[in-house]
Amino acid sequence: MSDSATDLAQLVTDIARRARAASLVLATASTAQKDAALRALAKLLPAAEAELLAANAKDLAAAEANGLAKHQIERLTLSPAKLAHLAESVAQVAELPDPVGQTIDSWTRPNGLRIRQVRVPIGVIGIIYEARPNVTIDCAILCLKSGNASILRGGKEIFHTNTAFAALIQRALSEAGLPADAVQLIPTTDRAALNTMLKLDEFIHCIIPRGGESLIRFVAQNSTIPVIKHYTGVCFVYVDKAADPVMAERILVNAKTQRPGVCNTAEQLLVHAGVAAEVLPRLAAALAAKGVQLRCDPASLAILSADAALQASGSVQAASESDYKAEFLDLIMAVRIVPDLETAIATINRDSSGHTDAIVTADEAAARRFQAAVDSSVVPWNASTRFNDGFEFGFGAEIGISTDRLHARGPMGLKELCSYKYLVDGEGQVRG
Amino acid sequence: MSDSATDLAQLVTDIARRARAASLVLATASTAQKDAALRALAKLLPAAEAELLAANAKDLAAAEANGLAKHQIERLTLSPAKLAHLAESVAQVAELPDPVGQTIDSWTRPNGLRIRQVRVPIGVIGIIYEARPNVTIDCAILCLKSGNASILRGGKEIFHTNTAFAALIQRALSEAGLPADAVQLIPTTDRAALNTMLKLDEFIHCIIPRGGESLIRFVAQNSTIPVIKHYTGVCFVYVDKAADPVMAERILVNAKTQRPGVCNTAEQLLVHAGVAAEVLPRLAAALAAKGVQLRCDPASLAILSADAALQASGSVQAASESDYKAEFLDLIMAVRIVPDLETAIATINRDSSGHTDAIVTADEAAARRFQAAVDSSVVPWNASTRFNDGFEFGFGAEIGISTDRLHARGPMGLKELCSYKYLVDGEGQVRG
Repeated sequence: MSDSATDLAQLVTDIARRARAASLVLATASTAQKDAALRALAKLLPAAEAELLAANAKDLAAAEANGLAKHQIERLTLSPAKLAHLAESVAQVAELPDPVGQTIDSWTRPNGLRIRQVRVPIGVIGIIYEARPNVTIDCAILCLKSGNASILRGGKEIFHTNTAFAALIQRALSEAGLPADAVQLIPTTDRAALNTMLKLDEFIHCIIPRGGESLIRFVAQNSTIPVIKHYTGVCFVYVDKAADPVMAERILVNAKTQRPGVCNTAEQLLVHAGVAAEVLPRLAAALAAKGVQLRCDPASLAILSADAALQASGSVQAASESDYKAEFLDLIMAVRIVPDLETAIATINRDSSGHTDAIVTADEAAARRFQAAVDSSVVPWNASTRFNDGFEFGFGAEIGISTDRLHARGPMGLKELCSYKYLVDGEGQVRG
Repeated sequence: MSDSATDLAQLVTDIARRARAASLVLATASTAQKDAALRALAKLLPAAEAELLAANAKDLAAAEANGLAKHQIERLTLSPAKLAHLAESVAQVAELPDPVGQTIDSWTRPNGLRIRQVRVPIGVIGIIYEARPNVTIDCAILCLKSGNASILRGGKEIFHTNTAFAALIQRALSEAGLPADAVQLIPTTDRAALNTMLKLDEFIHCIIPRGGESLIRFVAQNSTIPVIKHYTGVCFVYVDKAADPVMAERILVNAKTQRPGVCNTAEQLLVHAGVAAEVLPRLAAALAAKGVQLRCDPASLAILSADAALQASGSVQAASESDYKAEFLDLIMAVRIVPDLETAIATINRDSSGHTDAIVTADEAAARRFQAAVDSSVVPWNASTRFNDGFEFGFGAEIGISTDRLHARGPMGLKELCSYKYLVDGEGQVRG
C-alpha cells in the first residue's frame, strides 16, 4: 500500500477501535443518560440551523456544479422545516421504551441454575448509505437509544451536511456525559476507506447498508462483518376465489398506488381463475383510473381486451416474461390468472422477493394455508402490503425492513438492533 | 471455467435449487411427519450397521494409507456402540417440541390489524464440517426437526461414511413421505464445490461451519451467505474479593479441568488483589494437583513463588504477553492479579473472546455489575463456565455455541435454527 493508503486504513481502524471502546460504555449507560443525549440533540438541531444550512449549501453548490438532476438535489436539500421535523423525530425516540436490559426469557434448571436471557446492544453498527442527510440522524439516534455505537459512512454528495450533523450529535453526547466516539462519521468518502471498514470484524459487529440494490450488493459481497440487508420488494396481491370484490379493489389500489416508489408497494397481481372474468375488469378499471399500466398474461389479457373502456384508456398490454419478477417502483403492475390457491402460493414462492405478499379472501382456511405456505417476511390477509413498516407495526421507529432471514426479518425497530446474552446465577454449581 | 469446473458448479447449484424446493415442503410439514422421519432413521441406523461399518472401513483404510495419527483415526471410527448412541440421539430429537409455528409475540394495532410473529424455519442451511461422522447425523436431524432443508459438506476423510449416512437419511425421509432432497450431501470434496456453494445466496440462507478456527475463518471470508460462527473460547474466571474460597476452588477446577479441550473451558484466571495472597495459593495448589500448568503475571508469580510445594511441583512459571489472550485447550492457565472489579471487567472485555466469563463472589452488587458490563454470550455468577452448552441450558439439543451477536448468541438449539415471519390479519385495512 502507498503511504496515504496506509494512513487511510489506520484512520478508519482507529475510528472503529474507538467506537468499540465507546460501545462498552454505552452498553451499561442508563436510559436517562441516553435520553438526555437525544433531548440535547433535539434542541441543538433547530439551534444550529444556520451552520447546518451553510454546510448543506456547500453540498448543494457541488451538486449543481456536478450537474445532478433536480429531484436528486431536492433529496439533498435541508430546510428549516426538515430540521424541525428531524428534531421532532429525535425527541420521539427519546420517549420510546429502552430495549436494553429487557428479560426475553428466564427459567431454572434442575440443578438450581437460574438462567436469564436479557436484551443487550449488538455493539458497534456500521451504517453505509447514500445521499439522504436524514439517514445520518435517523440511524445515529436509533443506534444510540439501543445502546449501540455507530459508524456512519454517507455518500459524497452530502459530505459537508453529514460532517455538520455528526459534530452536533457528538456535542449532544458530550453534554449528556456519554463518549463522543459513540457516533462517528468516516471523514472521507474515499472508497478505500469503505473497503477497510467492511473488513474490521474485530471491532464492528454489524453492517446495515441503506440505499439502492447495487450498494447493498456491493456491501454484502465485500464485508466480512455480518450484513443486514434491506433489499427492495417484489410484492404480490392474490385475489382469491372467495374475495370480496370491493375489499379487493380497495386493498389493491392502496397497495399499488399509495406510494409507488417504495419496497412494500405491490408490483404483481394474481387473480383466481374462478372469479377473474367477474372481478378483474373492476380491479383493472380502478387501477387504470389511478394511472396504472397493466402488463397482462394471455388469460388476463383476453378478459381485459373485451373491455372497451379499458382498451380505450391504453392501460393494458401484454406482459413479457421479465415483468413477472419485476420491481417496477412505478405505476405499472403485472397481472396473471392462476387456477387455484396452490398455484398462487407456488407462483409467489418462485417469483416474489419474500418481502410482503397479501391474500384477499373471505375463506379463512384459504387465508391460513396462504399465510403458512408463503415464505415472506409479512403475509397480510385482507390488508394492504403497505403495512410492512416499523411505524405501522407500532415499533415507534424503523431503521429499515430486513429482507434477510437471520436475526431480523421484516420491519426493524429498536429491539431488532439488539442482541442478547445469558446471565446464569448459581450457588457454586459445577458440571458433572 | 473448464468443462469439468462448469459441471461441478452446475451440480452444486442443482443440489441447492432442489434443497430450496424441498425446504418449502418441509416448512409446512406436520410435526408428526418430521418425527416419523426421525423415528425411521433411528430404526435404520442399527439396521444398516453392516453397510455403515463397511463404508467407514473404506475411510479408515484411506486414513491409514495417508498416515493419519491414531487419535485422528479414532475420531473417524464408527462402532456398533457409536451407532446405537447416534440412533438414541435421533429418537430423542423426535421427542423434542417442534419450534415451527410457535407464536413469539402478538398484538393488535389501533386500526384493528392483528399481528402475530410466528416461528418459521430459516429455509436452507449449509453445514460445512470436517472429519467427525456424527456431525452428519446431528446436523441433519436438528435441521429436519426445525423444518430446514440441509446441505452437508463434510471432510474428505469421512466421505464414504457420510455418503452411507446421507443415503440412510434420505431413505428415512422417503419412508415418512418427505422429499429426499431435504437432506443432501455434496457428493465431492473438491474445494471448488465448496467455493460454489458459499456463493449460492439465492438458494441457501445460512451457513454453519463446524470445525476448527481456520475452517470457520475460510467460510466467513468466502461466503456471500450469512454465516453463524462458532469460534472457540478464551474464557475467564474472576475470583472476586468477596469470593468463598471453597466455592472458587470448586468452580475453577471444574471450569479448567473437566474437559480441557473444549470451547467453554476456562483459560484465564483473574484474582482480586485484596484476597490474592490468601486465596491464590489454595487455587493454584488445587489446579496443580490436577496437572494444570500456571502462567503467571509478576504479582501472582510473587505470591506463588513463596509456596515451596508449588515450586517443587514445577507447575508455576512466568507468563508471556501472548498467554493472556491464549486459548490453550490444554491443562494450562494464565493467571493475573487485578486491583478491583472494574479492572477485571475491562481486562475481560479486552482479552476474552466474548464466549463465557464467570465471576465468583458473595457480593451480589459486584456480580450484577460484572454480568451487566462483561460483553460475553454467557456470564455465570458462582457457576462453572462449562454450563454454556445447549444440553445444560435445557435445549435438548445443540448445533453449536454461537460466538456471533446477530441472530443467535451462545448455545444454539432448535429455536435458534428458526427465523420468523409476521402474519397480519385485517378486514380490508389500507394505509392512509
